[in-house]
Amino acid sequence: MPTINVHLLPDLVAEDALAGSAVVVMDVLRATTTLAYALAAGAAKVIACLEVDEARRIAASLADERPLLGGERGGLRIEGFDLGNSPSEYTPEAVSGRTLVFTTTNGTRAMLHCRQARRVLLGSMVNRQAVVRALADEEKVDLVCAGTRGQITREDALCAGALVAGVARGDGGWQLNDQARLVLAAWQGLAARGGGSDLLAKELCDSQGGRNLLAEGLEADIPWAAQIDRFDLVPRFDPADSTVSVL
Amino acid sequence: MPTINVHLLPDLVAEDALAGSAVVVMDVLRATTTLAYALAAGAAKVIACLEVDEARRIAASLADERPLLGGERGGLRIEGFDLGNSPSEYTPEAVSGRTLVFTTTNGTRAMLHCRQARRVLLGSMVNRQAVVRALADEEKVDLVCAGTRGQITREDALCAGALVAGVARGDGGWQLNDQARLVLAAWQGLAARGGGSDLLAKELCDSQGGRNLLAEGLEADIPWAAQIDRFDLVPRFDPADSTVSVL
Repeated sequence: MPTINVHLLPDLVAEDALAGSAVVVMDVLRATTTLAYALAAGAAKVIACLEVDEARRIAASLADERPLLGGERGGLRIEGFDLGNSPSEYTPEAVSGRTLVFTTTNGTRAMLHCRQARRVLLGSMVNRQAVVRALADEEKVDLVCAGTRGQITREDALCAGALVAGVARGDGGWQLNDQARLVLAAWQGLAARGGGSDLLAKELCDSQGGRNLLAEGLEADIPWAAQIDRFDLVPRFDPADSTVSVL
Repeated sequence: MPTINVHLLPDLVAEDALAGSAVVVMDVLRATTTLAYALAAGAAKVIACLEVDEARRIAASLADERPLLGGERGGLRIEGFDLGNSPSEYTPEAVSGRTLVFTTTNGTRAMLHCRQARRVLLGSMVNRQAVVRALADEEKVDLVCAGTRGQITREDALCAGALVAGVARGDGGWQLNDQARLVLAAWQGLAARGGGSDLLAKELCDSQGGRNLLAEGLEADIPWAAQIDRFDLVPRFDPADSTVSVL
């Protein structure tokens, strides 16, 4: 029986337990959402970095390509960077055809935690159905929530629940771990109240990641993250060279 | 605003973050359930131990009281112990008036993790409403799920959700952390399907702790753990002397 396991934080699954799996990393507010926007806007290449200094060094080594530096620390744009971590910044005008060097607090760490997986896809609400389709023939799926500063966050859990709902489709043909059952129930609770992007945006405001954004004056990002199925595109992370590209 | 936080594993909350809180520890399958049965059956005193050798040593030092040794390793009764960790063993005939020295794999560890709390109550489905009442005047409540071998388990999450539902009563007057919102949704999903002890027993069979019990031939314990509100009694753990007694 195919299995789908949810891990509410990267540290809740050992790196080697992901070997052979198709993994989806989710950092809904905001890294994996923003990377979907960036690739949809035509960014040619994305290099994901763990550290700010590393990002600067890599960007300098690629000066010929005129790379853009993007990302955040404490939620905010990093000094000297071209772009922050808001989806709305990643327009075709800003990023089409460009190389992007990108670093965020939780998302990049979560991706690197999955380096032993067979495939690492990036999931969010804006490309939910595309991710579900990309997982159609998999036998072992692991959904890894980035969380925020080591804390489990509801926005990632809801996204994981939406993916479990899409992949397992309630037909009993999939084996779910307990965390998958929990997030599925949370997503179904939302769906029972009508679902949809507007309700999701409201719910995301009342999640840990959403409250962090409100505290930083970045609440305008939330509706961008809540646009369910806006893109038919799946970003894929390649641990060999830390690049993110369209699957 | 009073707050209620759920922690799906002890390690997901720092010990000092619980200082000043009213904490409920849950190990539904089976330690906190079994201790409710033991106290309801009239056990005079329970001493909770982390290690088997420690339990044997303490029991030997109390030989005058003719203590009973109870608990499990790998789910099974420990060699030389009087009782395992099945609720059904803790009858008045077996334990009334007796001192019990008790050790389990996950439950005792979870209790000790909460030693800095102002109060440590033991929660389970069999005393859910009694625990809710005991928390009525609290301003900061932390619900700590024991989990199983470092894994988040659905049976503890459902119990936490039932307690959140009882304490916060959906009146918006309580602040919930994201994990509290998740388990509340899971519990509400069960309630929407009718709730009740029979459905809960079925659901507990399909949880990590339930599957572990099935694998060990101990599935008969599950209906005992699913008897919602059977007891009007709250076990309280005192970290000063590691005893569990009726609140």
